[in-house]
Amino acid sequence: MDYVYGPGRNHLFVPGPVNIPEPVIRAMNRNNEDYRSPAIPAMTRVLLEDVKKIFKTTTGTPFLIPTTGTGAWESALTNTLSPGDRTVSFLIGQFSLLWIDQQQRLKFNVDVVESEWGQGANLDILASKLAADTAHTIKAVCIVHNETATGVTNNLAKVRKILDNYGHPALFLVDGVSSIAALDFRMDEWGIDVALTGSQKALSLPTGIGIVCASPKALEASKTAKSVRVFFDWNDYLKFYKMGTFWPYTPSIQLLYGLRAALDLIFEEGLDNVIARHSRLGTATRLAVEAWGLKNCTQKAEWFSDTVTAVVIPPYIDSSEIVRRGWKRYNLSLGLGLNKVAGKVFRIGHLGNLNELQLLGCLAGVEMILKDVGYPIKLGSGVGAACAYLQNTTPLIASRI
Amino acid sequence: MDYVYGPGRNHLFVPGPVNIPEPVIRAMNRNNEDYRSPAIPAMTRVLLEDVKKIFKTTTGTPFLIPTTGTGAWESALTNTLSPGDRTVSFLIGQFSLLWIDQQQRLKFNVDVVESEWGQGANLDILASKLAADTAHTIKAVCIVHNETATGVTNNLAKVRKILDNYGHPALFLVDGVSSIAALDFRMDEWGIDVALTGSQKALSLPTGIGIVCASPKALEASKTAKSVRVFFDWNDYLKFYKMGTFWPYTPSIQLLYGLRAALDLIFEEGLDNVIARHSRLGTATRLAVEAWGLKNCTQKAEWFSDTVTAVVIPPYIDSSEIVRRGWKRYNLSLGLGLNKVAGKVFRIGHLGNLNELQLLGCLAGVEMILKDVGYPIKLGSGVGAACAYLQNTTPLIASRI
Amino acid sequence: MDYVYGPGRNHLFVPGPVNIPEPVIRAMNRNNEDYRSPAIPAMTRVLLEDVKKIFKTTTGTPFLIPTTGTGAWESALTNTLSPGDRTVSFLIGQFSLLWIDQQQRLKFNVDVVESEWGQGANLDILASKLAADTAHTIKAVCIVHNETATGVTNNLAKVRKILDNYGHPALFLVDGVSSIAALDFRMDEWGIDVALTGSQKALSLPTGIGIVCASPKALEASKTAKSVRVFFDWNDYLKFYKMGTFWPYTPSIQLLYGLRAALDLIFEEGLDNVIARHSRLGTATRLAVEAWGLKNCTQKAEWFSDTVTAVVIPPYIDSSEIVRRGWKRYNLSLGLGLNKVAGKVFRIGHLGNLNELQLLGCLAGVEMILKDVGYPIKLGSGVGAACAYLQNTTPLIASRI
Amino acid sequence: MDYVYGPGRNHLFVPGPVNIPEPVIRAMNRNNEDYRSPAIPAMTRVLLEDVKKIFKTTTGTPFLIPTTGTGAWESALTNTLSPGDRTVSFLIGQFSLLWIDQQQRLKFNVDVVESEWGQGANLDILASKLAADTAHTIKAVCIVHNETATGVTNNLAKVRKILDNYGHPALFLVDGVSSIAALDFRMDEWGIDVALTGSQKALSLPTGIGIVCASPKALEASKTAKSVRVFFDWNDYLKFYKMGTFWPYTPSIQLLYGLRAALDLIFEEGLDNVIARHSRLGTATRLAVEAWGLKNCTQKAEWFSDTVTAVVIPPYIDSSEIVRRGWKRYNLSLGLGLNKVAGKVFRIGHLGNLNELQLLGCLAGVEMILKDVGYPIKLGSGVGAACAYLQNTTPLIASRI
Repeated sequence: MDYVYGPGRNHLFVPGPVNIPEPVIRAMNRNNEDYRSPAIPAMTRVLLEDVKKIFKTTTGTPFLIPTTGTGAWESALTNTLSPGDRTVSFLIGQFSLLWIDQQQRLKFNVDVVESEWGQGANLDILASKLAADTAHTIKAVCIVHNETATGVTNNLAKVRKILDNYGHPALFLVDGVSSIAALDFRMDEWGIDVALTGSQKALSLPTGIGIVCASPKALEASKTAKSVRVFFDWNDYLKFYKMGTFWPYTPSIQLLYGLRAALDLIFEEGLDNVIARHSRLGTATRLAVEAWGLKNCTQKAEWFSDTVTAVVIPPYIDSSEIVRRGWKRYNLSLGLGLNKVAGKVFRIGHLGNLNELQLLGCLAGVEMILKDVGYPIKLGSGVGAACAYLQNTTPLIASRI
Repeated sequence: MDYVYGPGRNHLFVPGPVNIPEPVIRAMNRNNEDYRSPAIPAMTRVLLEDVKKIFKTTTGTPFLIPTTGTGAWESALTNTLSPGDRTVSFLIGQFSLLWIDQQQRLKFNVDVVESEWGQGANLDILASKLAADTAHTIKAVCIVHNETATGVTNNLAKVRKILDNYGHPALFLVDGVSSIAALDFRMDEWGIDVALTGSQKALSLPTGIGIVCASPKALEASKTAKSVRVFFDWNDYLKFYKMGTFWPYTPSIQLLYGLRAALDLIFEEGLDNVIARHSRLGTATRLAVEAWGLKNCTQKAEWFSDTVTAVVIPPYIDSSEIVRRGWKRYNLSLGLGLNKVAGKVFRIGHLGNLNELQLLGCLAGVEMILKDVGYPIKLGSGVGAACAYLQNTTPLIASRI
Repeated sequence: MDYVYGPGRNHLFVPGPVNIPEPVIRAMNRNNEDYRSPAIPAMTRVLLEDVKKIFKTTTGTPFLIPTTGTGAWESALTNTLSPGDRTVSFLIGQFSLLWIDQQQRLKFNVDVVESEWGQGANLDILASKLAADTAHTIKAVCIVHNETATGVTNNLAKVRKILDNYGHPALFLVDGVSSIAALDFRMDEWGIDVALTGSQKALSLPTGIGIVCASPKALEASKTAKSVRVFFDWNDYLKFYKMGTFWPYTPSIQLLYGLRAALDLIFEEGLDNVIARHSRLGTATRLAVEAWGLKNCTQKAEWFSDTVTAVVIPPYIDSSEIVRRGWKRYNLSLGLGLNKVAGKVFRIGHLGNLNELQLLGCLAGVEMILKDVGYPIKLGSGVGAACAYLQNTTPLIASRI
Repeated sequence: MDYVYGPGRNHLFVPGPVNIPEPVIRAMNRNNEDYRSPAIPAMTRVLLEDVKKIFKTTTGTPFLIPTTGTGAWESALTNTLSPGDRTVSFLIGQFSLLWIDQQQRLKFNVDVVESEWGQGANLDILASKLAADTAHTIKAVCIVHNETATGVTNNLAKVRKILDNYGHPALFLVDGVSSIAALDFRMDEWGIDVALTGSQKALSLPTGIGIVCASPKALEASKTAKSVRVFFDWNDYLKFYKMGTFWPYTPSIQLLYGLRAALDLIFEEGLDNVIARHSRLGTATRLAVEAWGLKNCTQKAEWFSDTVTAVVIPPYIDSSEIVRRGWKRYNLSLGLGLNKVAGKVFRIGHLGNLNELQLLGCLAGVEMILKDVGYPIKLGSGVGAACAYLQNTTPLIASRI
């Protein structure tokens, strides 16, 4: 694999898959095991309890499905809805677009609420739709918490408030792929019915577990949902949960141990500290972008994402060239601009198990690349701005005090 | 994880997940990478070519889906068939039962051909059904190549012959989960339209890749198949194949490198040598069972499986106790009897990256367990019988001559 | 490395380096760290306390020297003795021979007590020498606890008794390379002054730590010992112990974490259970040898080693051919006959983190090899004999009950 | 090990042990093997040839000794010199001091040439001593190529030239611990008789192999050298080289595979490119130090080290506090000031498998720490200066063009 190697570590700053911590890599470094032995169910039982904590739910039921985020989406939808059901879905970037596309292909009647890319979900329109829907034809509100393509975080608490305002019974389905375990997320408090994420995001694992958590109301809905499903059927899981063997089909042994280690690290650091760390790294990144004189693709501060920043570059530069340069010259992996913002933005992922100096190395790299491609940057300016903030806010590492 | 540890290595003899070779464990011991960098597509391109070799196809199109065998089944069915389509399916054990269940839940009209557990698929009935089906209402013949629950291998060449005899255009869909890369399997020669396996079986990887290979006829069928699908849709893959980026959603980086290493090991040993090794280990196991005076669940030699042996035990013993003992006392993982044969058989998997002495250790363990549970066994008898055969047939390791 | 790979696991039955348990491999799977950070000294402090437990000493001072067993020998000798000092040393096989050679090259006056290979140390001669040595010219008695070349375990309690009988002040230096943490070993109770082992033996780690433990009397001797030494000088360690930084030069970070994991496994199983397991595996091996009609190189039961068995083969067979065959045909690594017993014996190591079924796989392999080379063996006989014993004596795995 | 974990990767910038590249970690992730099998000697034979390339020697004989740099020193000295022999040794920092201490303890007559810490070896004094030594009482000139404590690189070509000027036959012994495979080093061209390094330095492996390379003249000297030695004796190695089994005692299997991988990476990048990369990173570091308004401990540019930079801080700051802060707050490991410069300097190691962005992350960290401890720094200044240089000089990664 000659095309892969470069001296030193790869600087992975795409918004997923993200850097895996060494203890997690170690935990997964193992042979297969019989998943029907007493060990795996014993381990799974605890994992299921612990995974609920990152959703901040006590009433939800989690499913650890051997799939990706796309599969987790499909699990959320097919278990709760029937063909023809009306959903309200917000189109604000590439990933919300793909989810909407999935909803349409699954034969739902999707009521798309579109915003300009760089803006958050238009919740005023949601309010008016709910207000008008006295017949409760809307079966679900589907929203991407954090749109990874534009670095926009939607306000989920407000969605809940609007639903409550109108006493609307629609299910509240949330793609938390690039938010859960990184941003403030409160499944129970916000009355979310299905929330989901993927192992390769904030949990900092390899791809391979789609983690879906269902509220009691969602489980109830699954009893009558008519969407055809087998692999993604929660009911198969629930049967095996009842038997205490937990797995309707073979899980990845390695990912179970990895998930155990990943959760242990998050709990050791403290989930709220993890979220605060993401906030610090997000802020530092935005300060650097500002210092470079570049625009954030996210149009208002209320939508700023603490897990990914999409940076708008001047029209005379092709953002793909920035990503290419990073890879070829500095062993740095940045995110491309997707679809409508292709060529116009590049993205810095600051998601998962990451610290200040890793980010600063990335920012320094971006500065050199910007110079490489002809942007008139003052080298050190962004790093300096980020440092000024981080030097004031970075706490001592608790375990080392 | 106190309940897991025991001195020495675990002896993993379930028919999947199976032992991962050290070079494969090493290859997967790595951080995540950006799957949109040039490296991953370059690697994928070669992997897709190489994976076709284990199916013995040059015309097939492979899909490496982040899922399990159950998901691979669903991919095979939903991409080629429409709700209401008639399938002929053979029920000969737990895994064929589950596949039939899936077909029914996916709303196909399943024409079940049942055999006694321990027998192979009744191909005479297939012949008569095809003969009668001049209207070609049968859209697909679905067969499990190797039924893992009973250790029965079906004759795929004969299925093809029968289809050809009647000039029947039905698709030929094969579950090769516990056969491909271990038993003689010839996708092109046998005119198989969809074949599938899972990474944790003969490829000796962790769970996580459902490998599905589609013939040109199957791809053609996918254009009109009406089953609802998104995550499992081949078409999404084909679009990304065309673009040269290959992945509609995030693959497991680790499994890609693992698959690379696994294929390298198989090619280094030689696929036909791998198959011959499975034949040797299967024969040795059956000779041991015979020497113990126990019956093979598989009723005729023509169906003997070289990847798993289901051993029938006397009615005064509960086979679950055998499996429990193996785990608790000898750090040995054996397969349980499932469903109709629960309590009546236990299973020895001899699948994947395994050698003679590993198997003999397992057989010695089984002998002690049989004694533990009160079966009047002559200790050493099965191992001796297996040794007598292996000592005559085991070749020198080519790389060490 | 084509010459290394064979299908399945390598069966490693040399008496060192031995199989590393998976949890230990995992623990060592890590990047380097600064050994002057607070973490490494904190870890070392506990390791030093814990390592004393495997020597069964509370008064000894351990040194974890980045070296092999040969270096550990040199450390033991040069820190306690001066050129010209008289030592009594027992020559009973290749490793005692090498230690004596080292003593001579270090300029000690070595009083060699030779036995036939296959016999233990002649302690009667020791008694007579001590009796005669009223002037206390003997400065040290040097003995290999377990002679790895012939599978002979010497009686250390008796050596101590003889020393005490004569009130002789000689230092009691013990090579415990293939015994400590596997055989009954009691540093304090037996009044051993320096005991040593290597990480790649019963501790089941890679090579790289020579573990030396010194009694207060040995430490006292080190103050006046005139042998030239720097790298092996205990005094450099003691200085850094006092400072709390512990390391006079760079240790292997990986081996420290590995040692931590290895000790944890031993303590989890229980040191006495580990020793009992070695006894079981040793007995089983000897019963197999007997069943094969072959002779143990060890001439009397009192000297039988529970960590390695040297098997004498008929003169018409070259034992090297047995080892060669094991490697080339069965992926089995056995020990060669060394020096005087080259060609005449082969050795089965049953040392370290190993269980019953691993050993039985090895014994089955040896049976096939014996047949390969023309020895008239009844296949299954040795395994059967071993099974008969093990089936009666193997306990349930405590953590799995 | 709670005191170890911090979010994200540890930033390891001590001048050894250094970061291990992922491919090397992978290569070492393995069970033990029999080192007497045919595989290990076959591998060793090639390793010994390849290791000569990093010394730039064709006539030297390398030894891969299971020890540290301190042990490698001892091997170099004891194999070539006899007690009482006169050596000329340069004292310019902590590591040259320790080597001199070893020489004295090994009973050589050490003629110490001292320089102020921060200066290179005083070669004028060497010249005058050689001039005066017409009787050739000087048996060896011992010099540390790169003094890791002060970041001073000595001019070895000039040493050779002076020796040649006076036609002096003294052996030329070089500690290349923090230089070989990172700085320009030419064993044959510079007529070096013994050169040595440790695996945990530029080779970027764990600690555990002391690599010593001896010229034909050094081998000749070893025949008459009277220093007592066993473990470190080259002659034992040479005997096993001749037999083709290579190892007088057990090597670390893992480190052999690791060394194989490490050399492969160096050869893939190109040794001269590796050296150029160190030069770039060294220069960038010095430019940052300058931008911070701080002084380099190294007093003249001719001695600047490209593997470590010792930074002098103002007297009102304790450099230990800088190192402590880095560890506790930023997960950054810096080098302490040692002995004479304790508290006065801290050290940035830029040695081994490292790239630009890793270094820039470290420099950003140092800037924040300097602010933490009250030094009036303009944040971003050092990183900016380093970036300005690196952006001009960093080549594309050859394998990715």
